[in-house]
Amino acid sequence: MLGGELRGPKDFPVARLAPSDADDPTAICFAGNEEHLRKALDAGVGAILLPTEAPPVPKPAIAVAAPRDAFAKLLALVDRPLRFDSGVHPLASVHPAAVLDEGVSVGPFAVVEEGARLRKDVRVYAHAYVGERCDIGEGSQILPHAVLVRDVQVGARCTIYPGAVLGADGFGFEWTGEHRMKIPQVGRVRIGDDVEIGANSAVDRATMGETVVDDGTKLDNLVQIGHNSRIGKHGVIASFAGISGSTVIGDRLVMAGQAATSDHVEITDDVTLGGRTGVTSNIEVPGTYWGTPAQPFGQAVRNITLAARLTEFYDRLKKLERRMEKVESS
Amino acid sequence: MLGGELRGPKDFPVARLAPSDADDPTAICFAGNEEHLRKALDAGVGAILLPTEAPPVPKPAIAVAAPRDAFAKLLALVDRPLRFDSGVHPLASVHPAAVLDEGVSVGPFAVVEEGARLRKDVRVYAHAYVGERCDIGEGSQILPHAVLVRDVQVGARCTIYPGAVLGADGFGFEWTGEHRMKIPQVGRVRIGDDVEIGANSAVDRATMGETVVDDGTKLDNLVQIGHNSRIGKHGVIASFAGISGSTVIGDRLVMAGQAATSDHVEITDDVTLGGRTGVTSNIEVPGTYWGTPAQPFGQAVRNITLAARLTEFYDRLKKLERRMEKVESS
Amino acid sequence: MLGGELRGPKDFPVARLAPSDADDPTAICFAGNEEHLRKALDAGVGAILLPTEAPPVPKPAIAVAAPRDAFAKLLALVDRPLRFDSGVHPLASVHPAAVLDEGVSVGPFAVVEEGARLRKDVRVYAHAYVGERCDIGEGSQILPHAVLVRDVQVGARCTIYPGAVLGADGFGFEWTGEHRMKIPQVGRVRIGDDVEIGANSAVDRATMGETVVDDGTKLDNLVQIGHNSRIGKHGVIASFAGISGSTVIGDRLVMAGQAATSDHVEITDDVTLGGRTGVTSNIEVPGTYWGTPAQPFGQAVRNITLAARLTEFYDRLKKLERRMEKVESS
Repeated sequence: MLGGELRGPKDFPVARLAPSDADDPTAICFAGNEEHLRKALDAGVGAILLPTEAPPVPKPAIAVAAPRDAFAKLLALVDRPLRFDSGVHPLASVHPAAVLDEGVSVGPFAVVEEGARLRKDVRVYAHAYVGERCDIGEGSQILPHAVLVRDVQVGARCTIYPGAVLGADGFGFEWTGEHRMKIPQVGRVRIGDDVEIGANSAVDRATMGETVVDDGTKLDNLVQIGHNSRIGKHGVIASFAGISGSTVIGDRLVMAGQAATSDHVEITDDVTLGGRTGVTSNIEVPGTYWGTPAQPFGQAVRNITLAARLTEFYDRLKKLERRMEKVESS
Repeated sequence: MLGGELRGPKDFPVARLAPSDADDPTAICFAGNEEHLRKALDAGVGAILLPTEAPPVPKPAIAVAAPRDAFAKLLALVDRPLRFDSGVHPLASVHPAAVLDEGVSVGPFAVVEEGARLRKDVRVYAHAYVGERCDIGEGSQILPHAVLVRDVQVGARCTIYPGAVLGADGFGFEWTGEHRMKIPQVGRVRIGDDVEIGANSAVDRATMGETVVDDGTKLDNLVQIGHNSRIGKHGVIASFAGISGSTVIGDRLVMAGQAATSDHVEITDDVTLGGRTGVTSNIEVPGTYWGTPAQPFGQAVRNITLAARLTEFYDRLKKLERRMEKVESS
Repeated sequence: MLGGELRGPKDFPVARLAPSDADDPTAICFAGNEEHLRKALDAGVGAILLPTEAPPVPKPAIAVAAPRDAFAKLLALVDRPLRFDSGVHPLASVHPAAVLDEGVSVGPFAVVEEGARLRKDVRVYAHAYVGERCDIGEGSQILPHAVLVRDVQVGARCTIYPGAVLGADGFGFEWTGEHRMKIPQVGRVRIGDDVEIGANSAVDRATMGETVVDDGTKLDNLVQIGHNSRIGKHGVIASFAGISGSTVIGDRLVMAGQAATSDHVEITDDVTLGGRTGVTSNIEVPGTYWGTPAQPFGQAVRNITLAARLTEFYDRLKKLERRMEKVESS
């Protein structure tokens, strides 16, 4: 099935998948590099999935060209969707003017509001809220406790995790001299196809127009996407990353944890932002950036490394000053 | 209605509001500055709301003294509250000892516990939880999936967004030498009038006494307010900002994303904190601060800019050391 | 009851506990240090709990050896669990194949899925979701709106706060050259005994094997624990702290707000991380660390303090260069 070469007994039984340091003689693990391989040999794990070029090992093994991909295939084999009864649960609240296509399931205590459209095979799990005029694409799943406030369009094959909130009002206020006047937020949220929105993340609706997370982009837990922003295709955004309002980001963004953008900045395609990077102005050249303000990676590494040596640096400066005084007075 | 001057045909129909770069010939946009105006002229948007002093433009326009305010008025015109059936939904769970004033609505699967008081025209949406002895002020709305654990007082005209959690226990533990002993948290949360609490934000209840978010203050999504803290009036606090426990903050705070305070600090009125500022000691002078530890803005800009030039700076130091050796040995 | 010495009238009535600056003549406060004591004497609070060595005060007082512990005892006296009707609420949805032990309560609109096990005296509050094959230990409480997606084991006497999400998929994708391929996540989450998981925090399930938060560890609100990570016993982790995937952490960790780890790092026992520390490599020596990259505390303080003086530092460098030119040309 994996197209690999079996190294060991044909009838060795494998009951489950495990990490390389597992003590489970009935499990197979994946050893993508030498460290993994050493761990797997030291631990009690039963069998190993390893690269073709690996040396012979004293355990049953399967050798494949791309062990990581092969392991993902095995994982997919044992994976199964969250349990779900098909059909609309008798304890769901579905508005009569909502449209449910073929194969749609709605769980207990879920709410589907007026004007919502659930396309083919959509699953709305327990406690999920699908607000007015939301449109959920074919095969997407709205997990327990996900909230689509209203006017949220979700593409096909998406997963919205528990606690994610899509379509809450953007954070727009204007100081009148006495108080913060609310700028009404009347826009939408548009989520592309094959998008994942992690647990407790938030994507605000636009003041007008739309806030966009485009095809294939994956958001980790606890990510914030401000109103009017547009994230391109096939990006990944890690936890606590904050995209401020009206940010425009290209395709294939990789944004590490706690990184953030100032509002109204533009970031081109193929940009990677290291952990906690602060983007305060446009990034026009693809590449890897780090630090605050964001700098090309190599430069940031040098600066951040030096910042951790400032004490030594300062001592040398003071010493130089004393030497200078001596020289000047001689 | 806007008190503006019409520049163009009287009968030009406007169907909706749009951003200045929208390609919608039936929309009107707002051009507050030259860049917006250029975008609006380049794009397919039908009409423009612009300042009185703007030059004539080749599109239908309305000229007003304050185009931003006028646009907010238009936005308010097209805004409408989240759909809601009036009255208590048959699938809501309202304790018989809860008090519901005139005009109160409670959505499906919402829970209102014993001793809760919902004042005139309060709306508790689907899946919201209003715990024991919570008191919600006139006209406030508790959106789907908002949670008021218990002993939370909310003023008038507030909006609590989905996933916000008010009144969970403060984070108080004491190390006994063997384990973390919980300090019971028996206090309350008090939210003033006209407050907004963003999606998935948290405001913990006090150990005793109360945690306060005062009148007119707006919290973005994913904000944390620790126990016993007090935030003054008319502030704005952006995403991932963290107010530690027992912090006392004055009026009109502006706190940008990911900024944070150490616990027990005090911050006076009229303070602005830049993105990711770390406040580690009291701030007694109004003004704008940035950096960690928080510094007056101009100083922080210089320091942070120099930190991004440390490599160059270090090279110059090394060069000076070599020159000094030469001088000293001559 | 507190084993203390009464200083003042025997019949002075105390109605409640209050902070030391409260204006409540019927309350008793706790004064652990001189500042608290001064506040308590200045304010209108009625009585004071103070250390045995404190001087006589002009208010009724109780003197004890450890006033903080004594106050915690008083707090525990007035604390009571969130109200709950015993038994399974008629509006709960409990799968027939779930197992509920003696004394279990399930609130309105709560969902308990197939194969779940709720042990003795477990309380599942309103709107909570306990997914397939979750196992909740004796006396634990799952508060309103907490979500256990599936395959989550929770020990005894735990509290899972509202909006916490345990067992969502780990964030694992592989770039194929065209898109992000999802690595299926088929592992579990294991929470030890006496653990607290704060509001809106997230603990992802492992790719395979388990993600662990061990006995006695307390998570604040809005904390993220990545897949495959293991947190030891009796730690405390504050808001916005992010533990990346496959991190291994020892016992008694203290992690302040917004601190974070790179993935795959290991941190030994008895480590304290200051606010916003960024751990990018293993920490093998117990102690206190701060800064990014994480440095021993004293060193970090010096470096961070100097970083706030870079402007001065740079001026001195420039001046030295000019002086050097003068010396060289003479």
